[in-house]
Amino acid sequence: MEQWLKDDERLDYLLAEDLRIIQSPSVFSFSLDAVLLARFSYVPIKKGKIVDICSGNGAIPLFLSARTDAEIIGVELQERLADMATRSVLFNNLSDQITIRQADAKGIAKEIGSEKFDVVTCNPPYFPANGASEKNLKEHLAIARHEIHLTLEEAVQSASELLKQGGKAAFVHRPGRLLDIVTAMRTNRIEPKRIRFVYPKEGKEANTLLIEGIKDGKPDLKILPPLYVYGADGKYTQEVKEMLYGKE
Amino acid sequence: MEQWLKDDERLDYLLAEDLRIIQSPSVFSFSLDAVLLARFSYVPIKKGKIVDICSGNGAIPLFLSARTDAEIIGVELQERLADMATRSVLFNNLSDQITIRQADAKGIAKEIGSEKFDVVTCNPPYFPANGASEKNLKEHLAIARHEIHLTLEEAVQSASELLKQGGKAAFVHRPGRLLDIVTAMRTNRIEPKRIRFVYPKEGKEANTLLIEGIKDGKPDLKILPPLYVYGADGKYTQEVKEMLYGKE
Repeated sequence: MEQWLKDDERLDYLLAEDLRIIQSPSVFSFSLDAVLLARFSYVPIKKGKIVDICSGNGAIPLFLSARTDAEIIGVELQERLADMATRSVLFNNLSDQITIRQADAKGIAKEIGSEKFDVVTCNPPYFPANGASEKNLKEHLAIARHEIHLTLEEAVQSASELLKQGGKAAFVHRPGRLLDIVTAMRTNRIEPKRIRFVYPKEGKEANTLLIEGIKDGKPDLKILPPLYVYGADGKYTQEVKEMLYGKE
Repeated sequence: MEQWLKDDERLDYLLAEDLRIIQSPSVFSFSLDAVLLARFSYVPIKKGKIVDICSGNGAIPLFLSARTDAEIIGVELQERLADMATRSVLFNNLSDQITIRQADAKGIAKEIGSEKFDVVTCNPPYFPANGASEKNLKEHLAIARHEIHLTLEEAVQSASELLKQGGKAAFVHRPGRLLDIVTAMRTNRIEPKRIRFVYPKEGKEANTLLIEGIKDGKPDLKILPPLYVYGADGKYTQEVKEMLYGKE
């Protein structure tokens, strides 16, 4: 096992998918948001081409591989994270289905193909660049969390450049950015079609936004039923439990 | 009682507010959406100036009068509906607080005051004008339901013209128009701040959107907890029951 791991990395379980993933508390660990996005996004079951941008340590490509036989490319700017993702793909024997590319999401369509993809997923950095202190601007976590190298608008534009007409892009973000994301989507020809708000528990404001749009789609937005993460007992709701641990 | 009523009108109860309202099945009856908007909207408790545009038979001004001592103006284009609203105000002895004006919401600020109001509420026509048949284009119900005399954009613009800086506008609409309404609000200097989606019951898509913005406010959108109309038993939920019938 140790041959797969560097420094403080560990090999975590993705229980519902029966896969393993390399993580490091000091560099990056995937969040619940990646799980939610990978379940929310449409995927073709048998064939097609999927790109996950801002792929981090590859959690979303790994999750998606359990739902589809389509080819999946994960694009991650940070060398260290792309390396972790590549090793996780190898460890799970998924090299035939998943390719990790260490590259900038900006302009990635020029490298891997313009308007060629059926689905793009993206769990982008959430926080404005000016929220990151000078000191940690170069740190792995800051780059993954703050819009230092990729703004929301740039992420949406990259997704649009990758998508075929009729292809679908799914994003996860904070509800406070709803207006920015729908504006960016429409500006980039991705018509918002499905939104699901995620609430920490009943009676609280939403803290996560899942949104999917179709390139050159017709306006017809649906607001899906809310998703609650925790029940009144403080434990994961049945829906989230099944996403994380699988059906019993 | 009969001196108050014309034709097929009847005097319905607004139970939670202990008020009465004149309605006519062939002309117009208020819907649950008016109740939801009147409860969702911010109101100053003691003093201030409120305008309700697209006021119909005056349901929203009547509901609001139970929550505030502020002055309320109801603006309704259709003479018959404005007349019903005026008689309901008289019947409830609310003429000191509520004034009904039969007027076009478009440009109404020029008549009653630009940038002078603290709150504007609006339950506008929901359906595109082209959805109304030629035949019923002039009918009361068609005018109240379709964007024949007032588009969504015009309603938002009128609200903005009425509002003070820092004043609040609240709208109720269909979730499918979310993108249009937030775009119209931002274009007209009303920054969306609170959204609440209303679901017919658990597990269904939202069918109503409540949204409030602040004129020249800072971006900071909250998605409030969902509101369910019916429970699993097919009866109104406790929250809706209290809105309609008051607390027991």
